[in-house]
Amino acid sequence: MDQYFYSTQIYEDFIILPEDEAHHALKVLRKKIGDKITVVDGKGGEYESIFENVNVLNCKLKIINRKNNIGFLKHSIHIGISPPKSHDRLEWFIEKSVELGIQEISFILTENSERKNVKLNRILKRTISSMKQSLKALIPKINDIIPVKEFMENCINNEKFIAYLGEEENRHLIKLAPAQSDYCILIGPEGDFSASEIKKSQKFGFQQVTLGDNRLRTETAAVAACHILNLVNEK
Amino acid sequence: MDQYFYSTQIYEDFIILPEDEAHHALKVLRKKIGDKITVVDGKGGEYESIFENVNVLNCKLKIINRKNNIGFLKHSIHIGISPPKSHDRLEWFIEKSVELGIQEISFILTENSERKNVKLNRILKRTISSMKQSLKALIPKINDIIPVKEFMENCINNEKFIAYLGEEENRHLIKLAPAQSDYCILIGPEGDFSASEIKKSQKFGFQQVTLGDNRLRTETAAVAACHILNLVNEK
Repeated sequence: MDQYFYSTQIYEDFIILPEDEAHHALKVLRKKIGDKITVVDGKGGEYESIFENVNVLNCKLKIINRKNNIGFLKHSIHIGISPPKSHDRLEWFIEKSVELGIQEISFILTENSERKNVKLNRILKRTISSMKQSLKALIPKINDIIPVKEFMENCINNEKFIAYLGEEENRHLIKLAPAQSDYCILIGPEGDFSASEIKKSQKFGFQQVTLGDNRLRTETAAVAACHILNLVNEK
Repeated sequence: MDQYFYSTQIYEDFIILPEDEAHHALKVLRKKIGDKITVVDGKGGEYESIFENVNVLNCKLKIINRKNNIGFLKHSIHIGISPPKSHDRLEWFIEKSVELGIQEISFILTENSERKNVKLNRILKRTISSMKQSLKALIPKINDIIPVKEFMENCINNEKFIAYLGEEENRHLIKLAPAQSDYCILIGPEGDFSASEIKKSQKFGFQQVTLGDNRLRTETAAVAACHILNLVNEK
């Protein structure tokens, strides 16, 4: 099975592995000098490289082949999610959306949000491990939590959606989203967006959409939205 | 927030709640005589009922309104999945597929399966809690693990698919599946189906499909397949 490693210390012809990655490679997988691995930098760079030493604290790899700009698509998905109470469920959303393909994740604070903060370090760690697991070279941009109204005012994506369970006849995301665009979709808390938040979203050009007839948990709705926007772009 | 309770002891005009459900209603939610709850039977029956007593060991409810045949659709989804090594990930698939809508789940033993058994009782418990959480009245049929070749020989669904990562140009499930049908899709283990399993599946009329360009974990692929088959049936 292929396995990717992650480093941001990429130089002209060598790489330094971070300590945790070096530990995994050398102590768990027992890599030796001359063994080959693939390193990704989270920015679309993928590097075939070989171990020049087996020092966990200064693990140096020689780059023997590099590919740049891997994983850039003709569409881009940005999800703004009100974090569910359970942080495990939030991290599960991170993992699944990275597997399915996502470019940007923001956390939003809404009137009915139960959780007011997120563990950004744990989220970034989970993002990186999911990127490696799914053999990708790009990590999504992760933005810390801000009030949803501030988010709406500053959102610059082309196609803006808000998932809403309200009374009105909403149209399904899969029917409304055009292919090859730059999307943002807002996913509310268990108690849904408030009337005032919906009104504000209309003012800022967010289209109300449904994700289907089923009652979905917040994290399921976010993964479903991510999957739908990727499906719209299937060749 | 609405909340459903589950019981299989539904009589002419009364219901007996199982002990765990009665405990939750009486000790956690502190329901009193005369309070109203909604009970579902997992077979499409939904019952408005009121507490006649507050005895955890013999909790009797009077039925005041009943609806039958709730949740039956014009399509039906049957997923045969090689259980992932982590039972948590398997249970996560159960929860998410029940939320999205699924009618039957089977476990299959393949050449590359790492896990050879499943915890059926835990799975059934998770199925019921997911049904209640997503305000449904139907639980999917759950079948214990059998060898995949035996499964293929006995599968009676109309539209049969197998998700396969092989070299050949497979077509995307969303393009191949017609609306309003009775589907079965097989999801293999991390190491994928073997050549011999694929050959056998062709003999038994399973069409090879892809779920997209991304490398998905087993449980993510299963949830994606379930979501796609539901999307095909969106009005």
